[in-house]
Amino acid sequence: MRIAQIAPLAEAVPPKLYGGTERIVSYLTEELIRQGHEVTLFASGDSCTSAELVACCPRALRLDPAVRDQVPYTLMMLDQVRRRAAEFDVLHFHIDMLHFPLFRDLAAHSVTTLHGRLDLPDLPPFYQAFPEFPLVSISNSQRRPLQSANWIGTVYHGLPLDLLRFSPRSMGYLAFLGRISPEKRPDRAIEIARRAGIPLRIAAKVDPADQNYFEQQIRPLLNDPLVEYVGEIGEAEKSEFLGNARALLFPIDWPEPFGLVAIEAMACGTPVIAFSHGSVPEVIDDGVTGFIVESIEGAVEAIDRLDRLDRAAIRRRFEERFSVERMAQEYLEIYRRVARVPAPRFRVA
Amino acid sequence: MRIAQIAPLAEAVPPKLYGGTERIVSYLTEELIRQGHEVTLFASGDSCTSAELVACCPRALRLDPAVRDQVPYTLMMLDQVRRRAAEFDVLHFHIDMLHFPLFRDLAAHSVTTLHGRLDLPDLPPFYQAFPEFPLVSISNSQRRPLQSANWIGTVYHGLPLDLLRFSPRSMGYLAFLGRISPEKRPDRAIEIARRAGIPLRIAAKVDPADQNYFEQQIRPLLNDPLVEYVGEIGEAEKSEFLGNARALLFPIDWPEPFGLVAIEAMACGTPVIAFSHGSVPEVIDDGVTGFIVESIEGAVEAIDRLDRLDRAAIRRRFEERFSVERMAQEYLEIYRRVARVPAPRFRVA
Repeated sequence: MRIAQIAPLAEAVPPKLYGGTERIVSYLTEELIRQGHEVTLFASGDSCTSAELVACCPRALRLDPAVRDQVPYTLMMLDQVRRRAAEFDVLHFHIDMLHFPLFRDLAAHSVTTLHGRLDLPDLPPFYQAFPEFPLVSISNSQRRPLQSANWIGTVYHGLPLDLLRFSPRSMGYLAFLGRISPEKRPDRAIEIARRAGIPLRIAAKVDPADQNYFEQQIRPLLNDPLVEYVGEIGEAEKSEFLGNARALLFPIDWPEPFGLVAIEAMACGTPVIAFSHGSVPEVIDDGVTGFIVESIEGAVEAIDRLDRLDRAAIRRRFEERFSVERMAQEYLEIYRRVARVPAPRFRVA
Repeated sequence: MRIAQIAPLAEAVPPKLYGGTERIVSYLTEELIRQGHEVTLFASGDSCTSAELVACCPRALRLDPAVRDQVPYTLMMLDQVRRRAAEFDVLHFHIDMLHFPLFRDLAAHSVTTLHGRLDLPDLPPFYQAFPEFPLVSISNSQRRPLQSANWIGTVYHGLPLDLLRFSPRSMGYLAFLGRISPEKRPDRAIEIARRAGIPLRIAAKVDPADQNYFEQQIRPLLNDPLVEYVGEIGEAEKSEFLGNARALLFPIDWPEPFGLVAIEAMACGTPVIAFSHGSVPEVIDDGVTGFIVESIEGAVEAIDRLDRLDRAAIRRRFEERFSVERMAQEYLEIYRRVARVPAPRFRVA
């Protein structure tokens, strides 16, 4: 199949640093090519891909200090996609909404994966105004604020099986990985670790928008001898950081659309102790790949039950449910439903 | 002629409060209708117009606390413009750039007035990618960073002649009107007034983005008995505020694309003492409607020369150069060059 992947330009594909959407676009693209499809990737020029790369800006916009406004580059990208649209059987957009008016006549042959939270008041009238675009959610819970939109499927994220290393044993500490922000609740993670009396390692970046929150709410909590703040870590360090942990703490306080870090932990065989918000009940198999809790007390109590979980079984469940092969397969089924060419059929001899 | 005006949705047309672009769209629309043209205005639903109003959101987005993101509404508006495009001889866009990919095939029959500053590094590649859109600048100086773009004309802003009242005499004070912001340099205005020993009245709003600047840089300067800060004023108060002033101080420190307040002062017969940036040398007739200066000293010295200026002559020059009739006439000439129907010709008997 001839597939166009249209990625955000904020980060490279895959991103040099943080950037969940661009990582998923990269994993999906590489897997589609491995399976023999023709993929063209519209992305920033510093992307690395086996696909044909259409460089829509020289480098990732978020890392380019000269860039003030990302919109002009995205509009130029859409113009290029439009000019080449006839070459593709399906257009797969990962950029939220800017493409909707321009691709109205091709909507039936497009797929738009929504990667963010959808509980904003501006969105229902928008999706109502463009009802013909088939939408993919990354969890069923993500859809809740937009139940009546034109959903064509839910496709959970997936990772290459060899991306992260399985670790049969932990080194006993609890882990927190992600952004320091009020909705990720690192304060809760610290409180859980202190009540349990178990060391906590925090690997997290601080966005400029969260700098005040970090300084005022979190930094004072880092003095505890049980808590170690290691800053931002790269892809190469994740296997060790997550794999050596006794559990990942995921005490979120917002409608998480997916939560990539949870399946990264599972890939290492590390269970997840997660608060029950957003996609958590869909991603975590309670009692198998982790424990879903409702409170600090519940999380502390879950730590006592961690020994009942089998790290090899966690890894197996990850391989069954969250591989990139499964993700690509599900997208291909969706592509076949919207593609301009029918799927190949078995010949009757 | 059948004309579509496409306005920003941030403010109503005309705006309830601040908002230069939406005021110009309103003046132009009313004048085009007065001259017998068919105008359709795409704007927020709380706009007031003699044109056919296509309400693209219930009310001005900047004043709607439920709105987090203006882009979805602008995309819905563009979709509506697109569906009705065949009804119009010309499409006149005032929304910067979001329409470019969608209207590429109709670019030759569109006009886009750029209302903002253009010295941003993201813009040259963008306008190079969409070379067929005819652009209008609101001053020649505004074009400087984008010399090679597809400029079709410069149209200076204009005001209805009865909008502001001519005031033959002043009450002696100096005036500052606009936003409190580093590029408007209210600190310079205060310094000029203090050195000249003449009272200064400041009527200005403070945007959230400029709150720190106001508190730290400007508020300490307001203790001077010569300085009176009157806060934000509405349209109804402008005639009195500007008309009673001996001069408007316009000590800007940025490439001002036009500077509506300068012609508002002129409409009242009030001269302008302006620093020579951006559009100032085009808008102010030095020695007739005000004085163009290069420094605080120059401004103080210019105050001594204010008596040489004739307030009635300032009003006359305003009427000659900055009426809404002149603005509408110049836009009509541009519309005729791009319209799908040729201009009516004199019949040879």
